[in-house]
Amino acid sequence: MKIALAQLNYTIADIQGNSNKILSAIQGAKEQSADLIVFSELAVCGYPPDDLLDYPHFIDACKTAIESIAKACHGITAIVGCPMENPEETGRRLYNSACVLEDGKIVDVIYKTLLPTYDVFNESRYFEVNDIFKTVEIKGVKTAITICEDLWHEMDRFDYQDNPLKLVSVHSPQLIINLSASPFNHGKKEERMEVLVKQSKTYHLPLVYVNQVGAHTDLIFDGSSVVLNGQGEIVHQSASFAEDISYFDLAEQHPVIKAGDLDHIAELHQALVFGIRDYFGKMGFKKAVLGSSGGIDSAVVQALMSDAIGSDNVHAVLMPSQYSSEGSVSDARFLSEQLGNTYTIIPIESAFRAFEGGLSDLFKGLPFSLAEENIQARSRAVYLMAISNKLGYILVNTSNKSEMSVGYSTLYGDMCGSLSILGDVFKTEVYALAKYINRDENRIPDTIIHKAPSAELRPDQKDSDSLPEYDILDTILKLYIEEQIDPELIIQQGIDRDVVNKVIRLVNNSEYKRFQAPPILRVSKKAFGRGRVMPLVSKW
Amino acid sequence: MKIALAQLNYTIADIQGNSNKILSAIQGAKEQSADLIVFSELAVCGYPPDDLLDYPHFIDACKTAIESIAKACHGITAIVGCPMENPEETGRRLYNSACVLEDGKIVDVIYKTLLPTYDVFNESRYFEVNDIFKTVEIKGVKTAITICEDLWHEMDRFDYQDNPLKLVSVHSPQLIINLSASPFNHGKKEERMEVLVKQSKTYHLPLVYVNQVGAHTDLIFDGSSVVLNGQGEIVHQSASFAEDISYFDLAEQHPVIKAGDLDHIAELHQALVFGIRDYFGKMGFKKAVLGSSGGIDSAVVQALMSDAIGSDNVHAVLMPSQYSSEGSVSDARFLSEQLGNTYTIIPIESAFRAFEGGLSDLFKGLPFSLAEENIQARSRAVYLMAISNKLGYILVNTSNKSEMSVGYSTLYGDMCGSLSILGDVFKTEVYALAKYINRDENRIPDTIIHKAPSAELRPDQKDSDSLPEYDILDTILKLYIEEQIDPELIIQQGIDRDVVNKVIRLVNNSEYKRFQAPPILRVSKKAFGRGRVMPLVSKW
Repeated sequence: MKIALAQLNYTIADIQGNSNKILSAIQGAKEQSADLIVFSELAVCGYPPDDLLDYPHFIDACKTAIESIAKACHGITAIVGCPMENPEETGRRLYNSACVLEDGKIVDVIYKTLLPTYDVFNESRYFEVNDIFKTVEIKGVKTAITICEDLWHEMDRFDYQDNPLKLVSVHSPQLIINLSASPFNHGKKEERMEVLVKQSKTYHLPLVYVNQVGAHTDLIFDGSSVVLNGQGEIVHQSASFAEDISYFDLAEQHPVIKAGDLDHIAELHQALVFGIRDYFGKMGFKKAVLGSSGGIDSAVVQALMSDAIGSDNVHAVLMPSQYSSEGSVSDARFLSEQLGNTYTIIPIESAFRAFEGGLSDLFKGLPFSLAEENIQARSRAVYLMAISNKLGYILVNTSNKSEMSVGYSTLYGDMCGSLSILGDVFKTEVYALAKYINRDENRIPDTIIHKAPSAELRPDQKDSDSLPEYDILDTILKLYIEEQIDPELIIQQGIDRDVVNKVIRLVNNSEYKRFQAPPILRVSKKAFGRGRVMPLVSKW
Repeated sequence: MKIALAQLNYTIADIQGNSNKILSAIQGAKEQSADLIVFSELAVCGYPPDDLLDYPHFIDACKTAIESIAKACHGITAIVGCPMENPEETGRRLYNSACVLEDGKIVDVIYKTLLPTYDVFNESRYFEVNDIFKTVEIKGVKTAITICEDLWHEMDRFDYQDNPLKLVSVHSPQLIINLSASPFNHGKKEERMEVLVKQSKTYHLPLVYVNQVGAHTDLIFDGSSVVLNGQGEIVHQSASFAEDISYFDLAEQHPVIKAGDLDHIAELHQALVFGIRDYFGKMGFKKAVLGSSGGIDSAVVQALMSDAIGSDNVHAVLMPSQYSSEGSVSDARFLSEQLGNTYTIIPIESAFRAFEGGLSDLFKGLPFSLAEENIQARSRAVYLMAISNKLGYILVNTSNKSEMSVGYSTLYGDMCGSLSILGDVFKTEVYALAKYINRDENRIPDTIIHKAPSAELRPDQKDSDSLPEYDILDTILKLYIEEQIDPELIIQQGIDRDVVNKVIRLVNNSEYKRFQAPPILRVSKKAFGRGRVMPLVSKW
């Protein structure tokens, strides 16, 4: 049996566009004499469609699309992910489904059993749980068709009560197929391979795994589809972070591919660049603008933007205040020249003075404080958004995860932007990214990399005045936010109790800021945004 | 059996504070010789605790609290809502539980079966589904203990496969108790009563319903606990929007209370005032600041704020530009005087000119556009936030749901604020609120109520230049957003196709703005925020 793995990049809700991609892949597979073509989870509408699933006309459009795709399936079988209506009168209205298309019609529909509802996943909000376990015969091969989480009954935090693959295995399948929409994050590829290998080995079955590729605002899907033989060995690998339609013949012998060690920083760079590029591409945006402070965060973002959408399309705005260091403008200017970006210098002092003047009566006799610091950050945001509104450049946000965590950023100031590039990247990782960006040549000037981090909003301000050193800070944050570990256990790892408690208090007290933050490119297993829902009014 | 209904206002995650409230209510009930005291759902931690449930030390703290509350239960039975660990090795780690406390210990634990996972509810994210159905004997009365959704197996959009009350009814209960955390929205009280009456009538059983009261940022819980007799008639009612510990003796005869017609605008006013007051109270905030434009939205917010936290605590900032109408300052000033609020006038022209100056090279030869309109809105936000930062006043947002829907508002401008007061109130309802606020005296000047709505960001601008009249707009928005109806069906109701399509396009295209909006006091069955999750990058 010759199988096509259709790893495609869909646009959420672009049912017509997605259908055309699917149809063209089917046509190509027919020309290659494939017996079967497998698409990813919810391919027809893209994953995740969120609350569009609540709208009857959205479901109708998906149904019309899958029926018209079925009509193209003659001489080939296609398995296509699509939301399908629950034929029963009770239970959720929909099933997350794999439609088996043959002879011009939908010949079978397999429903998803395990509905991920944690972190960024919310499938119990929409779908009913499957309770029918059977194989589907495809070209004489008894096939266990599963959808993404169906293979993940053993989880980090809990095991599901059901094990769908075990339930279907009583029917003696000869092949496992999995339609997936599994987003990228640090360590995910290894974790995913572990799960797939274990399932293939447990049932001594070959496994064809087709994952979605493409970025959907915050979520980045890496593709990386694979085929394992019946011994759990990798015998086929699709591209990562790119569309890829590839072919695999089950009847042939294939050499085993050894999984090499991943360079996590290279992978992070690739994920971010892909996430930015796909966001701009799908939104129809060409050009970006950002505030370039001469600091490392904006420098790394500027380099990533240049890599993602082209140096010509990135415009930097340098907005010194009276508190900016001498080097900050020259460093930022040098950076733009190195990266080949256009730039504008707009000192913010006149705007700052105007606000000061307007507030002079009200603030009479009161000392310089956070208010004045924030006026500077917010004046910069007004400039950046004006440039965005007037010239159609899209403002990207440059805050990193460390400062987002502790609220060390100005709401409606440096927290502005349509997309946060580094909001899931800790400061220590930003340095590693800078080093990676400079792997061949010094694109980011050394002076930017080596200066002490500072917001430069008051005289001689340094991040380390009010925060622990970033290696300690990031260790605490990673354990508390990503690993969700109790503070006591962090302290037991040898970090000072007062420091831990202070950092956690800062994290808890800045939920209200993050609530209004831009969407963040997700690259860790716990990013701020849809995957982390915290109460604002609370006492913890 | 004498039952205490403990309708209390908890703070999320304030486990110590909540425990003290619970203990003091138990003590009071003992003094009143009550046999049983019933608390609301997840009383120990408050509802909803969101992802705090993921933290082991949070669950440990809840466990310690419920054990120490149990120790106080001598001579009385208490039923207290609390998250409890799943003793099994598979399935979610937690159950949403009702703990039965007697003789100083936890004598029984009932788990919740139906886990709402739609709109603002997300319980499948945390909890395992109950599959044990039994009664609990309390002072010789066989009692069916249920938790909130357990009584709601028949839903608007789908029916659950399970019906927990039916499953427990085989054990012949004599009484139904329901621990609830059911948030307020327009029409909810009627809907809730319908469900309770139906269940009581179906099983011919008295029903004691104890709901949480209190606001938790966006979610407003109204309390309104009740007791129904075995004929589904109301025989006891607790207060709405207030704490209330009340007593009811099952053995006594009680007159039937007729449910009166509700005045929805009065109720809306009450809900908003309660929501504001509780937000400020729980956050420890005293004073509020808002931009007062002379328009109806900010006027209604100013009146609501005065009602909620006191006239002395509300500061209005009047920030005219060259496009402001003559009346806008005088109307706003008159409003502040009427309401007894302090106010400051800060013209924004000098800030606007400073930005114009800074951008003059970059914008040379380009016409006045949205960019300049937004500079005005954003300059106002800089002033308001500076006042907030310097003086500790909390900025409240004044955007209404109609403009939030169509994106007729400036991100980082008039969309700023820590809490949106009217973000779930359509413009037509804002007028009705103004009328209600003026029911006894003209607190909001007639000129404000009768002027044509305008953003006043360019010469002679009117909302009706670019939007349909508000009664038509709001009809479309209500059907599309709250009822989730297909556009074709809206058109079939007699509204012009082009208008419907334009409005829906505006709604879909402004998801990115709403993503960064403040939390919104929820008063409709579908508010923007956590209850409506929409893709940003999409094509629909």
